[in-house]
Amino acid sequence: MDIVIPLYDGYEPLDVVGPYEVLAYVPGVSVRFVGAEKGPVKDALGSLPTYVPAAYSAVDHCDVLLIPGGGSWRTMVADTDFLAWVRHIHHRTRYTTSVCTGALVLGAAGLLEGLTATTHWRGQEALASYNAAYTPQRVVQQGKVITSAGVSSGVDMALALAALLSDEVTAQAIQLWIEYDPQPPFDSGSMAKAPDAVQKRALELAKEPPRNG
Amino acid sequence: MDIVIPLYDGYEPLDVVGPYEVLAYVPGVSVRFVGAEKGPVKDALGSLPTYVPAAYSAVDHCDVLLIPGGGSWRTMVADTDFLAWVRHIHHRTRYTTSVCTGALVLGAAGLLEGLTATTHWRGQEALASYNAAYTPQRVVQQGKVITSAGVSSGVDMALALAALLSDEVTAQAIQLWIEYDPQPPFDSGSMAKAPDAVQKRALELAKEPPRNG
Repeated sequence: MDIVIPLYDGYEPLDVVGPYEVLAYVPGVSVRFVGAEKGPVKDALGSLPTYVPAAYSAVDHCDVLLIPGGGSWRTMVADTDFLAWVRHIHHRTRYTTSVCTGALVLGAAGLLEGLTATTHWRGQEALASYNAAYTPQRVVQQGKVITSAGVSSGVDMALALAALLSDEVTAQAIQLWIEYDPQPPFDSGSMAKAPDAVQKRALELAKEPPRNG
Repeated sequence: MDIVIPLYDGYEPLDVVGPYEVLAYVPGVSVRFVGAEKGPVKDALGSLPTYVPAAYSAVDHCDVLLIPGGGSWRTMVADTDFLAWVRHIHHRTRYTTSVCTGALVLGAAGLLEGLTATTHWRGQEALASYNAAYTPQRVVQQGKVITSAGVSSGVDMALALAALLSDEVTAQAIQLWIEYDPQPPFDSGSMAKAPDAVQKRALELAKEPPRNG
């Protein structure tokens, strides 16, 4: 079973590594990363350079396509070759999935027309522009298309997907292995829960890019 | 504010990227990765090669040291030069922290003697061998030493640390930005919650290394 995750400069690392950590443990699964070209890719936070072993154009088929988000979505939705590839791959996937603003790539590829979907809360207007109905749910499955909310939601999506690709005991065993018994010290992880001051601060932080490296 | 995360071949990617995703958004923070040597490092799951820009030996001081886990812990605890470096760095950190079996590295460096600490549930006996008292808590702070449980716990630890390094509104804003409102589809993320069949399956999965790349 072949899972392909395209990476672009500016990909949000947890969008990618959350699902990777879960899905790589599904027996029989192979997770591959691809890029616009073979070679180094920069993450959104600037410190974790990654080497992508192949271009997406070298992939003609996969069982699961997973599109991560990050600032890179703006580049990805403007890349008509990439969008054509997404459409081509989607045609024969078992599941076509996204994390965070990766949903906007699925939207730009025309794959969310008339569907309900989710994305990062900041992406909801962009999502609507692709004729998809945004819902602030953590994970939304519509047929073989599965979208998930911002950044960290990919872990929850991947556990549900792991059960679809194997069985519930295996998915639960992966949850136990990665000790995913979340106990966040605060309860401000969604727009419905975060006070106004926290929402305001989040928008400020998003304007100050992390200074890493 | 300088946060340093050493990577070894075999590091567990979510141990690293969970905290990185949170901490990189703390204003004024810079997150750096180091390795045994400058150059490529392989993750435990085999698909995400990373390029580390510097050797740990080039770092003489940092504000926060974060030791991730993974199968690499066995190599790390046997590397006396590395352990001497960990002790040296610890001397002047504001916080010395670990995720998962990274706690065993702190133990081997002698930094957990007589303390209560946590680690991946599979690492509890090894932790005890370093004269630390294992507790199955998600995050344990003892003075400036903060340990966290398996793999995914680093996100919870990093949010608590973000509040210590900045303020609670900022930490909550980071939680909102990464939309960390966890809703796992199952409730088997700890040994206390997972049924016997799930525990057994988890041990089987851990014996079958992921086949990626």
